[in-house]
Amino acid sequence: MPQYTAPTKDLQFLLHDFLKVSESDIPGYSELDEGFTGAVLEEAGKLASEVLTPLNASGDREGCRFEKGVVYTPKGFKDAFEQMKEGGWPGLDLPEEYGGQNMPYLVNTAVGEMFSAANQSFTMYQGLTHGAASAILAHGTDAQKDKWLPKMVSCEWTGTMNLTEPHCGTDLGLLRTKAEPQEDGSYKITGQKIFISAGEHDMADNIVHLVLAKIPGGPDGVKGISLFIVPKFLVDDEGTIGARNGVACGKIEEKMGIHGNATCVMNYDGATGYLLGTEHKGMRAMFTMMNEARLGVGMQGLAQAAAAYENAVVYAKDRLQGRDVTGVKNPDGPADPLIVHPDIRRNLMDQKSFVEGGRAFLMWGAKLIDEAHRKQDAEADGMISLLTPVIKGFLTDQGFDMAVQAQQVYGGHGYIEEWGMSQFARDARITQIYEGANGVQALDLVGRKLAQDGGKHVMAFFEMVKTFLKENEGNEALKADFLDPLKAASKDLQAAGMFFMQHGMKNPNAALSGSYDFMHMFGHVCLGLMWARMAKVAQEALDNGPSDAGFYETKLATGRYYMARRLPATGMHLARINSGAATVMDLDAEAF
Amino acid sequence: MPQYTAPTKDLQFLLHDFLKVSESDIPGYSELDEGFTGAVLEEAGKLASEVLTPLNASGDREGCRFEKGVVYTPKGFKDAFEQMKEGGWPGLDLPEEYGGQNMPYLVNTAVGEMFSAANQSFTMYQGLTHGAASAILAHGTDAQKDKWLPKMVSCEWTGTMNLTEPHCGTDLGLLRTKAEPQEDGSYKITGQKIFISAGEHDMADNIVHLVLAKIPGGPDGVKGISLFIVPKFLVDDEGTIGARNGVACGKIEEKMGIHGNATCVMNYDGATGYLLGTEHKGMRAMFTMMNEARLGVGMQGLAQAAAAYENAVVYAKDRLQGRDVTGVKNPDGPADPLIVHPDIRRNLMDQKSFVEGGRAFLMWGAKLIDEAHRKQDAEADGMISLLTPVIKGFLTDQGFDMAVQAQQVYGGHGYIEEWGMSQFARDARITQIYEGANGVQALDLVGRKLAQDGGKHVMAFFEMVKTFLKENEGNEALKADFLDPLKAASKDLQAAGMFFMQHGMKNPNAALSGSYDFMHMFGHVCLGLMWARMAKVAQEALDNGPSDAGFYETKLATGRYYMARRLPATGMHLARINSGAATVMDLDAEAF
Repeated sequence: MPQYTAPTKDLQFLLHDFLKVSESDIPGYSELDEGFTGAVLEEAGKLASEVLTPLNASGDREGCRFEKGVVYTPKGFKDAFEQMKEGGWPGLDLPEEYGGQNMPYLVNTAVGEMFSAANQSFTMYQGLTHGAASAILAHGTDAQKDKWLPKMVSCEWTGTMNLTEPHCGTDLGLLRTKAEPQEDGSYKITGQKIFISAGEHDMADNIVHLVLAKIPGGPDGVKGISLFIVPKFLVDDEGTIGARNGVACGKIEEKMGIHGNATCVMNYDGATGYLLGTEHKGMRAMFTMMNEARLGVGMQGLAQAAAAYENAVVYAKDRLQGRDVTGVKNPDGPADPLIVHPDIRRNLMDQKSFVEGGRAFLMWGAKLIDEAHRKQDAEADGMISLLTPVIKGFLTDQGFDMAVQAQQVYGGHGYIEEWGMSQFARDARITQIYEGANGVQALDLVGRKLAQDGGKHVMAFFEMVKTFLKENEGNEALKADFLDPLKAASKDLQAAGMFFMQHGMKNPNAALSGSYDFMHMFGHVCLGLMWARMAKVAQEALDNGPSDAGFYETKLATGRYYMARRLPATGMHLARINSGAATVMDLDAEAF
Repeated sequence: MPQYTAPTKDLQFLLHDFLKVSESDIPGYSELDEGFTGAVLEEAGKLASEVLTPLNASGDREGCRFEKGVVYTPKGFKDAFEQMKEGGWPGLDLPEEYGGQNMPYLVNTAVGEMFSAANQSFTMYQGLTHGAASAILAHGTDAQKDKWLPKMVSCEWTGTMNLTEPHCGTDLGLLRTKAEPQEDGSYKITGQKIFISAGEHDMADNIVHLVLAKIPGGPDGVKGISLFIVPKFLVDDEGTIGARNGVACGKIEEKMGIHGNATCVMNYDGATGYLLGTEHKGMRAMFTMMNEARLGVGMQGLAQAAAAYENAVVYAKDRLQGRDVTGVKNPDGPADPLIVHPDIRRNLMDQKSFVEGGRAFLMWGAKLIDEAHRKQDAEADGMISLLTPVIKGFLTDQGFDMAVQAQQVYGGHGYIEEWGMSQFARDARITQIYEGANGVQALDLVGRKLAQDGGKHVMAFFEMVKTFLKENEGNEALKADFLDPLKAASKDLQAAGMFFMQHGMKNPNAALSGSYDFMHMFGHVCLGLMWARMAKVAQEALDNGPSDAGFYETKLATGRYYMARRLPATGMHLARINSGAATVMDLDAEAF
């Protein structure tokens, strides 16, 4: 059965050495001294390893059960959910006035990686509640906030997001669920929603659905969509739960993974709903939470890779098979451990350098969100808006690939469910799909974010890389291993952007055909930048002769691997992009 | 539910335009005229689409059931197996004297792709029987052949291969199953074997296990391994089934995929076994079938990609979502089909260009096997020996990736088991693992095959590419799109080989750290060569103004995509290889 050890040391390094949180002027950051974050991470790690991990494989095996409209979560989930609530984790970064702890989003992200790594299916119940609560917080009236938030912040009631319908996923302009205005100001919601994670379950007294629907007579397409609060049980003004509302789960889906989370078909049959935000502005309301939600999914992809990597290492050290070609390493045993073999190393180093680089990227992204929200920093807001599709698309694609590579270390045992490695890959797979499939992320990046505010944010990104390179120009220890590769990769990325500018105006397909490659290039350059920065920090730390020198030396060695072995992917992506749209668009649809 | 259409037209193109089988002097090839192969492929395709495909998803859902030592295959498998036997398909390329049809391996491969694509789990029952029969054919005494082969060629009795034990997979030198000689010349086999595909099931009267075991007192390690025939039921000299032998299935495994095939723990408890081939030469006996077995697994990887691709295209044409940015394509509908979107095209073209290029590679490999076996052509034998790890490793890695990409086209529906796209990915996943995990293929390629016979075969490969380029030097229509990219990729591959030669002697890890990248580079160059050749053939065909010009034009366009968008991967792999072993091997095991 897989194990999980929280990456507390690595997160502390990122918070204090890398992001230097206590030196930051972001409101709430000054409290984040090492002792404080250490204590938070320690506690969260304990919950993740001791409570959530043991339920991961059993939850996968057992799955959710649907019986007469009721969804039963796997054995142990309910108790674990109580412990999660008692620890106050669901409201970690939510406002104190509604029962939260008002911590930075950054801390929530660090803790969230642990919970997701330990048990993605379980953690989604509170993750979706967090998303729904954020929407109410951003767009609700005071009365709505007072009514719904306290119970949602504590996870006494959970939340969901209802977007997809059978005939429409990405293209929400097509949606058919309708919301008919009633005399009392409420609406009657009618329609069917699918793929609703945590749409029904047995761990909360009430479920607060946020539902996209169209008010008859409104504009066509996405401009006529509004957002509604539709509770499972109606709640009176005193907060007392009343009658069942006209919404029910019709079935739950059999899926490739995340079996512990109920993916529901939700049927709305004249259910009472309350408008959240402005009429016809539902898409805007949804999108204000998108950066957080998508960063959260990027985090899930990374988390599965992290958990899978840990277990791949355990097996690679334990399993005796073959001999080191350069000389026997385990003379007393019948064979050497797998980890002596170069190709196993290559595999593990791919994983390790991705996990640690991706974690830095994610934490940087979370800090940008805090800067945007807590300091109203427009530049940070623009930067995270640019990076969000990269975080979501790149970290989940690579996260899945790395979970698959981790599974490969186990050979045949990786394919057997008993060992748990298959589950990491199966659970990671959904992160590439939900919250906007990765092709849509690439479209968002190239079709929208690159040109946003006149291209200001992408220019700021390149400027940041340039400044870093300039500042460290004389650093001979970093030059060949870190600075030169970063420079080359960043040049590739700029060349791709240039290609889009030159050809995209005349033929949008020239840019869109290269969007997926661009997203991956961008991800590699971001991780290259993270590694170069971490290398600098590690180098500085080593100059002070720290007691944990090994940690920093390993950090440098891992970064060197990424720069030498992973970053050259940018050249391939550039070559593809430069080949243009012709070969992609040439065939008639009938020729496929 | 997924559909399957056999690629008859494409296979006919490969057999007749590309490989020009009837012009070949390989014994048995002259009979392969278009009418004959067309009829065979047509019949096989019908069985695949109409009988095997409908059982694929249901077999996955139902799985095999283990009850009191008995394994029950999913509903419908037994009937389908009878139809398969009645058609004579299991013995297609096996000798007539044992009831086979003695057709070339090439035809068996073409047909095998269809069966595997339609239902991999099901087709494994006969595939393993074929492997075991081939071993008996190559190493058995006449009496053994007469006793076992007729029933195995017809699949009245099925076969298995027993290599892995709980503590040893790749490193078979560690195996513990023992074979004690008896006075009557037989052996008593005792030990436990795991991951035995089709080890027990309800579709055959007897199961003939081929088992690797050690005769006490023999040499240590792989040099002391012998191969035994161990039937489930003993068989007397008249061929009558007698008493149950001392072998039983202890349990079947829960797996990520191939649920319709029973993966068994087999317990041998003093079971009667008969030596196959020479004492202590069991590994050699196993390895003589390795080229075929590994090519067969490469075929499975390709087959899953082919089936997944077909269904991705269906969905991409059917699902309406969003609008073509260059102008509405489906004005009467609420949205345009997915296939108008450049990134969906990119995804589908990746798949299509891999499937058709990979199919050509596979068929070329099968022809080499026929040349080696039917003509005793040593050069063909050397070439297929070199290419086998590439066919296995590259086609299964890419086959899995492409099945995952096909799943992605379906968005959320791809993750739901109901749509069947998850199964293609889950079933394809095993092909990267069994019959030698792909890391072991890379090791075989770089550590053994490159230097085999003084490097003769790899030099012959490069010579072949060079000759092709030379012969077509003046072909301006092929130059930029096909010849130049092939030349560049081949140069990258040679540079990598050069790097290994220069550094590998001093430090084997310098070569082994790059083995996986080399395997993928090699695969890309092979597909590049296949595409360049197919382009030439297509061009020539178009010069004759054929009635099916569209087929050849599509072939050219698909090839152009591969050369422009897939082949540039060689540059990335070369950069990784050239970075050497340092970053791969740098860390102490404890630092992971």
